[in-house]
Amino acid sequence: MAGFKRHVFVCLNEREAGHPRGCCKHRGSEAVFKVLKEGAAKAGLAAEVRINRAGCMEHCELGPTVVVYPEAVWYHVPSVEDAETILREHVIGGRIVEQLLMDNIA
Amino acid sequence: MAGFKRHVFVCLNEREAGHPRGCCKHRGSEAVFKVLKEGAAKAGLAAEVRINRAGCMEHCELGPTVVVYPEAVWYHVPSVEDAETILREHVIGGRIVEQLLMDNIA
Repeated sequence: MAGFKRHVFVCLNEREAGHPRGCCKHRGSEAVFKVLKEGAAKAGLAAEVRINRAGCMEHCELGPTVVVYPEAVWYHVPSVEDAETILREHVIGGRIVEQLLMDNIA
Repeated sequence: MAGFKRHVFVCLNEREAGHPRGCCKHRGSEAVFKVLKEGAAKAGLAAEVRINRAGCMEHCELGPTVVVYPEAVWYHVPSVEDAETILREHVIGGRIVEQLLMDNIA
C-alpha cells in the first residue's frame, strides 16, 4: 500500500536575499532536514517514516517550518538542537513536542 | 492556527536522464502541479488548500505522485486531464478519485 506511517515535510524554499518574508532555507532548514533524515535512517525507520523535501508551505516568518502528517502537527524548528528533539520525541517516540509547536509561538 | 484544511504535495523531483527508476518530473509533474495550483486559486481555495512542491516521495515508478493530507490519499496522475479530475473531485469537491489511487494500479 502506498504511503508511510509518518510523513515529515521540511521547507527548503529559498528566496532572494532581503525578501521581506525571509525564507526557511536562510533560517537553517537544510541542517534541520539533515538531522531528521539521517536520524530517522539511523533509527531504522527509513521504510515507515519519510523525511521529505518541500517547497514553501506559507509560514515563512515562523520557519524553519516542519509539518508532520497524518497528524498535521506544525513545528517551528529554529536550531539543530530543536531538530534533534523532534527526531527523538516525535519522529521516533511519537510524542508531540509542545514547546516547538508553531501555534505556541505565533 | 498553523495549517490548511487540505495540503496537497506534488513530487517535482528530477533525476538524471536514463535513471532506472525514472522521476516524476520527466513523467509530467510540473504540468500536474500547475493545474492543481492555478485551479485551487481560481476556485477561491488558496487560503484553505495548499498545493505544495515536494521532493521525491519514494513512489517514482508510479508517478507523477500526488498525496493529499490529512487524508493521506496517494494518487498516480499521468496526465493533465487526470490532474483536472483530481482538482474538480478531490481538491474542490472533497471526493476521493478511486480510479487514480496509487494502490489501484500498483
